[in-house]
Amino acid sequence: MSTAPWRDPALPAATRVADLLSRMTLEEKTAQLYGVWVGADTDGAGVAPHQHDMTDAFDLDELIRHGLGQLTRPFGTAPVDPAAGARSLAQAQRRIVEAGRFGIPAIAHEECLAGFTAWQATAYPVPLAWGATFDPALVEEMARRIGADLRSVGVHQGLAPVLDVVRDLRWGRVEETIGEDPYLVGTIGAAYVRGLESAGIVATLKHFAGYASSAGARNLAPVRAGVREFADVTLPPFELALREGGARSVMAAYNETDGVPASADPWLLTELLREEWQFTGTVVSDYFGVGFLETLHRVAGTPAEAAHRALAAGIDVELPTLKCFGEPLVAAVRAGAVPEELVDRAAHRVLLQKCELGLLDEDWQPEPQESIDLDATANRALARRLAQESVVLLDNPDGVLPLAPDTRVAVVGPRAADALAMLGCYSFPSHVLPHHPEVPTGIEIPTLLESLRTELPDAKVTFAEGCGVADPDTSDFAEAVARATEADVCVAVLGDRAGLFGRGTSGEGCDASDLRLPGVQGDLLDALVATGVPVVLVLLTGRPYALGRWHGRLAASVQAFFPGEEGGPAVAGVLSGRVNPSGRLPVSVPDLSGGQPWTYLQPPLGLAGEVSNLDPTPLYAFGHGRSYTTFAWEPVEGTHPTIGTDGSYDVSAVVRNTGDRAGAEVVQLYLHDPVASVTRPDVRLIGYRRVELEPGDAARVTFRFHADLSAFTDRSGRRVVEPGALELRLAASSADIRHTAQLTLTGPVRVLGPDRRLRCETEVSGVG
Amino acid sequence: MSTAPWRDPALPAATRVADLLSRMTLEEKTAQLYGVWVGADTDGAGVAPHQHDMTDAFDLDELIRHGLGQLTRPFGTAPVDPAAGARSLAQAQRRIVEAGRFGIPAIAHEECLAGFTAWQATAYPVPLAWGATFDPALVEEMARRIGADLRSVGVHQGLAPVLDVVRDLRWGRVEETIGEDPYLVGTIGAAYVRGLESAGIVATLKHFAGYASSAGARNLAPVRAGVREFADVTLPPFELALREGGARSVMAAYNETDGVPASADPWLLTELLREEWQFTGTVVSDYFGVGFLETLHRVAGTPAEAAHRALAAGIDVELPTLKCFGEPLVAAVRAGAVPEELVDRAAHRVLLQKCELGLLDEDWQPEPQESIDLDATANRALARRLAQESVVLLDNPDGVLPLAPDTRVAVVGPRAADALAMLGCYSFPSHVLPHHPEVPTGIEIPTLLESLRTELPDAKVTFAEGCGVADPDTSDFAEAVARATEADVCVAVLGDRAGLFGRGTSGEGCDASDLRLPGVQGDLLDALVATGVPVVLVLLTGRPYALGRWHGRLAASVQAFFPGEEGGPAVAGVLSGRVNPSGRLPVSVPDLSGGQPWTYLQPPLGLAGEVSNLDPTPLYAFGHGRSYTTFAWEPVEGTHPTIGTDGSYDVSAVVRNTGDRAGAEVVQLYLHDPVASVTRPDVRLIGYRRVELEPGDAARVTFRFHADLSAFTDRSGRRVVEPGALELRLAASSADIRHTAQLTLTGPVRVLGPDRRLRCETEVSGVG
Repeated sequence: MSTAPWRDPALPAATRVADLLSRMTLEEKTAQLYGVWVGADTDGAGVAPHQHDMTDAFDLDELIRHGLGQLTRPFGTAPVDPAAGARSLAQAQRRIVEAGRFGIPAIAHEECLAGFTAWQATAYPVPLAWGATFDPALVEEMARRIGADLRSVGVHQGLAPVLDVVRDLRWGRVEETIGEDPYLVGTIGAAYVRGLESAGIVATLKHFAGYASSAGARNLAPVRAGVREFADVTLPPFELALREGGARSVMAAYNETDGVPASADPWLLTELLREEWQFTGTVVSDYFGVGFLETLHRVAGTPAEAAHRALAAGIDVELPTLKCFGEPLVAAVRAGAVPEELVDRAAHRVLLQKCELGLLDEDWQPEPQESIDLDATANRALARRLAQESVVLLDNPDGVLPLAPDTRVAVVGPRAADALAMLGCYSFPSHVLPHHPEVPTGIEIPTLLESLRTELPDAKVTFAEGCGVADPDTSDFAEAVARATEADVCVAVLGDRAGLFGRGTSGEGCDASDLRLPGVQGDLLDALVATGVPVVLVLLTGRPYALGRWHGRLAASVQAFFPGEEGGPAVAGVLSGRVNPSGRLPVSVPDLSGGQPWTYLQPPLGLAGEVSNLDPTPLYAFGHGRSYTTFAWEPVEGTHPTIGTDGSYDVSAVVRNTGDRAGAEVVQLYLHDPVASVTRPDVRLIGYRRVELEPGDAARVTFRFHADLSAFTDRSGRRVVEPGALELRLAASSADIRHTAQLTLTGPVRVLGPDRRLRCETEVSGVG
Repeated sequence: MSTAPWRDPALPAATRVADLLSRMTLEEKTAQLYGVWVGADTDGAGVAPHQHDMTDAFDLDELIRHGLGQLTRPFGTAPVDPAAGARSLAQAQRRIVEAGRFGIPAIAHEECLAGFTAWQATAYPVPLAWGATFDPALVEEMARRIGADLRSVGVHQGLAPVLDVVRDLRWGRVEETIGEDPYLVGTIGAAYVRGLESAGIVATLKHFAGYASSAGARNLAPVRAGVREFADVTLPPFELALREGGARSVMAAYNETDGVPASADPWLLTELLREEWQFTGTVVSDYFGVGFLETLHRVAGTPAEAAHRALAAGIDVELPTLKCFGEPLVAAVRAGAVPEELVDRAAHRVLLQKCELGLLDEDWQPEPQESIDLDATANRALARRLAQESVVLLDNPDGVLPLAPDTRVAVVGPRAADALAMLGCYSFPSHVLPHHPEVPTGIEIPTLLESLRTELPDAKVTFAEGCGVADPDTSDFAEAVARATEADVCVAVLGDRAGLFGRGTSGEGCDASDLRLPGVQGDLLDALVATGVPVVLVLLTGRPYALGRWHGRLAASVQAFFPGEEGGPAVAGVLSGRVNPSGRLPVSVPDLSGGQPWTYLQPPLGLAGEVSNLDPTPLYAFGHGRSYTTFAWEPVEGTHPTIGTDGSYDVSAVVRNTGDRAGAEVVQLYLHDPVASVTRPDVRLIGYRRVELEPGDAARVTFRFHADLSAFTDRSGRRVVEPGALELRLAASSADIRHTAQLTLTGPVRVLGPDRRLRCETEVSGVG
């Protein structure tokens, strides 16, 4: 028998897939459109809610006779030894290959939000910490390592990055985002995608789109947003990550926006994504997201109708399993209720991806690597560096930090001695191990208490927990106060416990009703401050909390967003002074606990004013962060240029390290558009550059501003550049403007197409 | 000289106005497009913020040479004796008539949110209390009396009603709304308009549109809403009040929605309002709203540009004064920057209204009535009845209410002995008198303490304030606890102080950061409950507050929304049992203080579920309210009819008073649409009827459901009726369903035009 065209690697992929599709039965085509989740719990105590009512029992042998599109979470469902897991996955693939007529393996996908969500794999800092680094290159390197680790065990696709832009700080998944600015989210997110894809792993942009804006910040609650907010805030990170990162998959979001579920939205998943943005990869559903069209959105009356709506909108693959795209879809196609062309369209995309991954090749072999180490030394070093760069020194008015080496330190608080305080909800230990209490963490995670003792060997370090993370009990306050009173300085380590669906104070399904510190931790902090001993607040959290209550009463404050397995040494290094803090806030730290939703992207009426008693001004602004050294910003030589609405202009700042130790400044470029045809944010980030400087050294950071960067969506829905005055603001934070450049755009209103510039090029050059 | 055509009452109004316009200079035409606010303070301590930077000095004599469109708040700016004010207004009109070439008087406008905002005028319950009555006829009667009072002093136009639908309970202006359901707001609002217009007063629908949805509930903050929410929640009350009420003016709202300020939105103010809805009256700006396009929205670079944008969108009149429509507009028209046709269009509408009001007639005389009494006995009786019907008995589990006549009652709380506790922020005493501390209230307002002593002459009533409304001081708790301990029952009278712009805890510019009771009132309530003495909570508020903290710990709870000058006797009557409570909640009473925005109009994912730890279920649902009698609902004879998408179906319930005293039940009809092409609220109100029943009596309430009432805005923006299953729910509240009727709509999707049915006709008939 001669080789069929679809097996011939010399032919174009599209030709091979067309040939293959023409040979397949309806069952075989639909089998490519779903996954199975072997080993997932069906008793309701599993990883996801609705798992119990969304997972039908099935006979795997019978099922895979038709082939199989996806294997769901072979490593992230239960703790397995990585090498054993890799062998088991290879075996499953062999079984699938042997069962079907065509012998096509499944795409194995896994979570990798902040590291491979697998036992013994490196737990990197969470995305919100990446945002705080303002360092895309480092994030790209991390993603490359994550990709290599996924690949080493036979996984093809990673369900990351999250490109949701924070719109309400109460949302439980804030920790999974890169922050509240679309430019920061897009540039860091694109770097992650580049890294992951460079390792051969299919990156999956999620959640497409709007999910972060749920009303009241309740997970999955309806999103109230208009088309301009959607176009100018929600979508740009996806556009950037597709164009610059080359992501090959997109996950449709759970949410509805203004009544239309994303997973049933042909405009979003087809017109915009494929026709305008020219995306050619696969669109996968979020877990159970197809079925939710029937059960939670009620835009479909049956699983078959849900399948129809999802396919018609542009979802190609149902995850994690086959509630709707299995038998209901086959029956509906047979009954003429769903056009077979929709199945063909999706199957074509899936098989094209499999072809590109080599999964249609005759010589494909699921052989895992011989030696597998998912937490290699180089991983840990990178995790450490990311953590160090992500710690934000909020305030240090009296220079109590760095701590003196021989000081008496009372470490107090429920987050000081718990390794899990370092991890977000998608880390394997937080995500899966709660269901396996007998299994060890699998990776070494020094606590902050341990790290501080290591970091300050000559200090007298005492400890009291003071209270739990979310418990109302205050009976241990007295001991904590006693420890503080005996010390020279008290380090209060407060924050979140990451968990899923109500099992934590941060994480998926762990939404906050307001921004008060969880439980009685705020009262503990009051009690510590009342001692008169200087209190250094260290927050290990998944979201910012309102700190106005303690403004002016703390000796210093340090914000870390779940900094990962090396977070303990990183934060301890900042406290000791070994590390000069350089993180900048990717989200505002609010003054008041109420008043959400609010982020810094506000037109004038969203800022403080005479018309409301509520002042939403944050305590620490987006982009804020202090250092142990000082930086001087030298004036830019000022012109007041006039450029066309298609022109560009270079604006630069010289930054000098005027202190006595090395440090990093993040030079930020904001745009202020004084008059426009629709209301515009008072400022928004359009460029940034992190620069490391030795004492006395200076660097010139040049931003190549292009008029495209001033574009916005006008009343008719077009993306336009309008003529008129602009102000470019070179700044150390969104509220700390150092220099401004006035600019006038002339010429006609320019309508931009999908080739518009999305990024501000920057250059760093030495200064004599 | 023969009479000019424009003076001829025999000619059609349009002919007269066209003739008049042809004779006018540009200055004379623009003069018709603004008001002047004589007597308004320009030092910034006045009634409105931005008054100081928005009010230019001008020479009135010079100005009125060209005529004058409007006189702003002749009664609501400072306390004036009504008769003297009427004479003064008449004198001002004579001066205007004499100064101009055409001798046209101004339209005098006033606030009349909950009664004429004038000294010595009746302060009726606030609109939220009207919502609680579910009694449009009574509201119509009130508005008729308000209109007659306005007319008696020479006022032509009233700036009411507020038709904003509550979307976030934290907003300060919740008290000014009729509630969180568009059908309730629309039907009660239309009744108000009918009443006001029947007295010859121009009613002004406001705020058009979207204002209530400001992000974070901060007054004037940007609104994040999509087109479907706008079409299906925000706009219907306006449509109903125009069609059924015949309102002759609409006020453009301050807010922006998704980047577009309402005051600069041609789609809203012209395409929808005039072309689709066929509105022919005037559109006035909210105070300073035209100028805000430049200063707060920044969609205009100068006052002239602001004038241009507003006129082009469809605003005809700038209020309260002439920042933009005065000299800047004239100069811009002269310079060719603004087409004169825009001025003509607006002037035509204004003059047409003046013509209809008789202000173009030669024999017009500004003679006020001889005898003026703005708080007549009949007004007070009506204010009393409205107040009585509006009080909501939330809970009375042990029957502690009504209070025994000879009991020992400790009345405690900062709202018990303050007459202003009864009034909202647009009442004259709260709105204006804070600037005139030497002036008496002008109307009699019995406090609840006084009223209760009158109501229960044989009881031993003691009193302690306990704390202030918003002060942190708890030093008076001890005395309050002592009074409670000595009593048989403690009546805790807590709530809001209405005020403007930060001077209150409720009212315009007094937004809440969360829904905890203001100040330390919650702690006071805790202390009272801890005594073990039964505590009856009485809330006199402008918004609901979270009461979950006290669930199951109170003997009874009563919610009154600023019930007006007769609120004291009304609430006391409920406590004594003289009045059988019959109010129903027009807004949900939340369980938790966070988690806003939330109202009951939620699709399934907006309700409690497995995907978020936050449970938004309110403690008391929309439509809830108890009575001292009991009602039995008898089953409806059930069919399961099939009707066309243009069909109708009668559904009815029989309600019987099974207790031993007269009382009123509010029969509510909700629609549940199980599957639709966009997500739909799980339930929404589509009909209601209040029925008064003597003991033992029964009534049949029949709702004529028409398929139009199931319409919603689909993905393409059309308003459609979709075929499929529907469930009609006859209910005592949105959460207390008594009977359901299943219905199937058949036929094609029906697209509705502007003649769609907006109201569910109801009939009440006796039962043998």
